[in-house]
Amino acid sequence: MTRSHIKAGLIQTSFSDDRDKNWKKLTQLLEQTAKAGAELVVLPELHNGLYFCQHEDRQEFERAEPIPGPSTEFLATLAKRLNLVIIGSAFERRAAGLYHNTAVVLDKDGSLAGSYRKMHIPDDPGYYEKYYFTPGDTGFTPIQTSIGKIGVLVCWDQWFPEAARLMTLAGADCLVYPTAIGWDPVDDESEQQRQLDSWVTIQRAHAISNGIPLLAANRHGHEADPDGKTKGTEFWGNSFICGPQGEILSQAAAAEDCLLQADIDLGHNESIRQTWPFLRDRRIDAYAGLDHRFLDQASENELKKNTGE
Amino acid sequence: MTRSHIKAGLIQTSFSDDRDKNWKKLTQLLEQTAKAGAELVVLPELHNGLYFCQHEDRQEFERAEPIPGPSTEFLATLAKRLNLVIIGSAFERRAAGLYHNTAVVLDKDGSLAGSYRKMHIPDDPGYYEKYYFTPGDTGFTPIQTSIGKIGVLVCWDQWFPEAARLMTLAGADCLVYPTAIGWDPVDDESEQQRQLDSWVTIQRAHAISNGIPLLAANRHGHEADPDGKTKGTEFWGNSFICGPQGEILSQAAAAEDCLLQADIDLGHNESIRQTWPFLRDRRIDAYAGLDHRFLDQASENELKKNTGE
Repeated sequence: MTRSHIKAGLIQTSFSDDRDKNWKKLTQLLEQTAKAGAELVVLPELHNGLYFCQHEDRQEFERAEPIPGPSTEFLATLAKRLNLVIIGSAFERRAAGLYHNTAVVLDKDGSLAGSYRKMHIPDDPGYYEKYYFTPGDTGFTPIQTSIGKIGVLVCWDQWFPEAARLMTLAGADCLVYPTAIGWDPVDDESEQQRQLDSWVTIQRAHAISNGIPLLAANRHGHEADPDGKTKGTEFWGNSFICGPQGEILSQAAAAEDCLLQADIDLGHNESIRQTWPFLRDRRIDAYAGLDHRFLDQASENELKKNTGE
Repeated sequence: MTRSHIKAGLIQTSFSDDRDKNWKKLTQLLEQTAKAGAELVVLPELHNGLYFCQHEDRQEFERAEPIPGPSTEFLATLAKRLNLVIIGSAFERRAAGLYHNTAVVLDKDGSLAGSYRKMHIPDDPGYYEKYYFTPGDTGFTPIQTSIGKIGVLVCWDQWFPEAARLMTLAGADCLVYPTAIGWDPVDDESEQQRQLDSWVTIQRAHAISNGIPLLAANRHGHEADPDGKTKGTEFWGNSFICGPQGEILSQAAAAEDCLLQADIDLGHNESIRQTWPFLRDRRIDAYAGLDHRFLDQASENELKKNTGE
């Protein structure tokens, strides 16, 4: 059952390479969040340790674990004790040689409501995720919980309007993005500002075009390059919650541990969608090109064949 | 041939109900723009007169005209004399009882390079466009000009990431949006601010997700409700040009006549797309739901049948 109000929150923090310390920190922050009244909490991506994808190293696969496994057990115990829906993250070992970057949803009773395997996988200097993670095969299906349908996506997904749209069309009540994104310390301040601004802007736009609230939980803090070749990554924090007009409801600074919380009113979502009825007017008869790589000649011919033109 | 640099601009102005006066004003502004060095200029939507869609009145169909017709002739003469690519707008009479809201592109030699029939048609109080305009059947195909491929879209299209994406995939060098959007004077200031902010944000996001520059040309000024039932519309100006990271290059105030201009560097577009390679990572194998109205059970069954699951 979807309720009309959800008290939703997120945690922004930094992580060390000591899983037990990270778990202790998350436990304390989740206790505070529950005390503050949240019913749903989003954690940053890959919260068990450092962002190991800064390099490609086979040893890092030792971090992988099955789902359910230690991380979901840890989160399930907290979810049940604190009566919280928790959206966490795990480096999933699905089979020998098959790994995913996976978000997990624990319901208030401690059950695993579902998981989402990151569909869009980045790969650029400092974010070598294509080495570790097979692109997800879960599709864009919201996860039903006791308090609503959660449109769970992960980090790089946040740059793709298609993902947010599909989650909305599948009935999500809100979008959540566990995230690990930061600055290259080599970039100058104006480039860093443009990147951060782009990241906030594109996610606010998903909220706007779909009339849906959105929570983005990022880590903060500097993490050194494990290979010592670069200046590492400065994770930029700035986690935020926005409403269905893309209006910022709460936003963290670049470098602070914090809890953000907001009231999500599903009745308000519907009223916003009535004011600006984008879902009414989509030209689904003319969107066939969207599942093509590029609309050059080869692709155009294929498209005409399929649509019978 | 697509060149590597384009000097692109737009005109923001207000309009009266006197077409000849509007054309005189546009002529002066286009002369100034050409003098300032622009090669491509975007005009606001339906620039021949007042925004007549504030009411539904059969008399208003008298404004409609064929394409080519008086408006394209007016613009063609200016395009040739001033050596400009002009993106204008017309209420197109295609046949008896068949009308479109159409953007037209005149090349530097005065030829009609192409036209685009607005694909997404709004309809809400003060914007009764579904009464006047049949949704376009041109699809999302950029228009080739002597200085590049222009991704021409119109107003309400700007709320749909699908439109911007399809234009990009079809090879557009930039996106342009002739626009007529404003505030309902009855809304309070905070709501007006959220609406304007949403409008800027979602378009900047199209630039970001596609790595493409964008020009949005709006009108400004108060226009009374022709039926005298409401407080009319306060067209909010704020026309802007942004680069491929969504960075604002130039923006107008809410209520001023002005010319904006920016240098569009297609080499820079490519470098931005290399830094953030979104086009590389789209999950075209998982986007089939995008041409469905909503992913409820009936739609899901259809989808599974089509994808052979």
